[in-house]
Amino acid sequence: MPELRRDPVVGRWVIISTERARRPSDFPPREVRRRGGPCVFCAGQEENTPPEVWALRQGGHDNGTGWQVRVVPNKFPALRIEGELEPAGEGLYDRMNGVGAHEVIIEAPEHDASLERLSVEHLAGVLRAFQARMVDLAQDPRLDYVMVFKNHGEPAGASLEHPHSQLIATPIVPSMVADELAGGLQHFRIKQRCIWCDIVRQERHGQARLVCQDGGFMAVAPFAPRFPFETWILPVTHRSSFPDTTAVELFALARVVGHVLRRMAAVLNDPPYNLMLHSAPLRTPALQHFHWHIEIIPKLTNAAGFEWGTGFFINPTPPEEAAAHLRDERGAS
Amino acid sequence: MPELRRDPVVGRWVIISTERARRPSDFPPREVRRRGGPCVFCAGQEENTPPEVWALRQGGHDNGTGWQVRVVPNKFPALRIEGELEPAGEGLYDRMNGVGAHEVIIEAPEHDASLERLSVEHLAGVLRAFQARMVDLAQDPRLDYVMVFKNHGEPAGASLEHPHSQLIATPIVPSMVADELAGGLQHFRIKQRCIWCDIVRQERHGQARLVCQDGGFMAVAPFAPRFPFETWILPVTHRSSFPDTTAVELFALARVVGHVLRRMAAVLNDPPYNLMLHSAPLRTPALQHFHWHIEIIPKLTNAAGFEWGTGFFINPTPPEEAAAHLRDERGAS
Repeated sequence: MPELRRDPVVGRWVIISTERARRPSDFPPREVRRRGGPCVFCAGQEENTPPEVWALRQGGHDNGTGWQVRVVPNKFPALRIEGELEPAGEGLYDRMNGVGAHEVIIEAPEHDASLERLSVEHLAGVLRAFQARMVDLAQDPRLDYVMVFKNHGEPAGASLEHPHSQLIATPIVPSMVADELAGGLQHFRIKQRCIWCDIVRQERHGQARLVCQDGGFMAVAPFAPRFPFETWILPVTHRSSFPDTTAVELFALARVVGHVLRRMAAVLNDPPYNLMLHSAPLRTPALQHFHWHIEIIPKLTNAAGFEWGTGFFINPTPPEEAAAHLRDERGAS
Repeated sequence: MPELRRDPVVGRWVIISTERARRPSDFPPREVRRRGGPCVFCAGQEENTPPEVWALRQGGHDNGTGWQVRVVPNKFPALRIEGELEPAGEGLYDRMNGVGAHEVIIEAPEHDASLERLSVEHLAGVLRAFQARMVDLAQDPRLDYVMVFKNHGEPAGASLEHPHSQLIATPIVPSMVADELAGGLQHFRIKQRCIWCDIVRQERHGQARLVCQDGGFMAVAPFAPRFPFETWILPVTHRSSFPDTTAVELFALARVVGHVLRRMAAVLNDPPYNLMLHSAPLRTPALQHFHWHIEIIPKLTNAAGFEWGTGFFINPTPPEEAAAHLRDERGAS
């Protein structure tokens, strides 16, 4: 059983993932590992994954072919869906069972597909999978948060080539989201405004960090980015919870996500990247002080001793320059 | 001039390092780059670095040969020592000039030396360099913090092979240190005890996560480590500020640091690693609620989307197993 443990000084939780327990000799040399045999995420290999929990399909039957997007439990989950949390103390320390969910969103049946080259309809289907899983997992009262994320390319943490995203549902609201909620609430209490709405207004007015706008969504290089070419995508009007996005809005969002990823691929030579979806915690009512958003960080630099020691990041590319490179004079379509 | 910028939501500061400004085409492919020409950190190349600010030498003269440890300003600094902070607002946002110091501690004159293979006397000299620079930089009222760190190996962020550490002095107490100070203060207010002293007591009693003890210092695998084989070294008796360490204590610390690094090299096949020194902010009186410590993290896994999105870390190696591998039955010498 994996275990959740809390650092007693700063309160940071970590997952000790015994499913993936590694001895010293198991840490691989730093080169691409190719799995032997056929890819289990490809069409026709459905029986080699755990049974699907959601699928977008035009024909066929559950766990057969005919799907466009397919969600399956991770075979090597960081957290497990079975069991009770059983929080316990050990002197100074706090731990609980590693209860949660870890799922894989297979974005397309073809091994050599790529998120940014999918049709808008298909990419909107991937986003719909995110939504559907968040809505379903919200029914489990043990779970407080769902983080949807994508690791593209080995340097960004991907261990399988087939295009896929993941989600991990946790019994705790993660510290970065908690920090965003706290910062947003502090701003709201003083100004009676959502801070991300203020960011949207300032960036639309200033334009220097704007990457694109389309159908109620905008992509922007944040004022204080941790990483070169870090880009945020957010709804222009206030919305705290991603699952509340309408079907029409999902299409516009798919256009913006696809556009940003294609621009990154063109400008940065198909970089490895991480994509993270920050939505409100599960089962919260609409929040006036939180605004859902997507963060995309191309993996161009490595966090090193200074970053791990301080939480400060050194970014060699001003966001105004990054946005200028990512902007496409031809617009977002 | 580099610039410090603050994220308006979570308050995280970043350094936009214009000295190192990078266009998209400048991001290198992920392979080891070797500099052409002789190494500027080697003995005999002293005129090719900025003039030294500190040196441990048995003979010779300033900026000549004959040194064992030498500290020079970084030629491509993340922050610059000249200028005023000039904090300014821009709508929602806050920025200031990137004033600070960025120095390189050259650990030995020989290119193929290695921190963990230095004599105890020599390694104590490296630690003395850290001390001396912290004391000197504390005289600059613009600076609030000095982070000493070491990136060993390209995957851990090193760009030069010659053994060296670095320090960056910042005009702001970094968020991770601020979080430690806040967590330590909260514990102290409730318990009237230092939380790190409590950790020392619990780990000495339990032994499962203890790596070694020697001369008033201990190395321990923390209860909730972010990374596999993460190891902390701390003084057993309470001390908030690293510069207060005595010369005798520096020798004991050098023995423990050398031992831990040699054990990591043996167990993990000479891994890349980051080492960070967390001391109290500059010019603070002795603090009852903060305890200086060193953190060492071998670079065995990559932070990916889940970690960057949540602040949660997934660690595949329980610290009890890591400590068992790092413990050496023969003791710390």
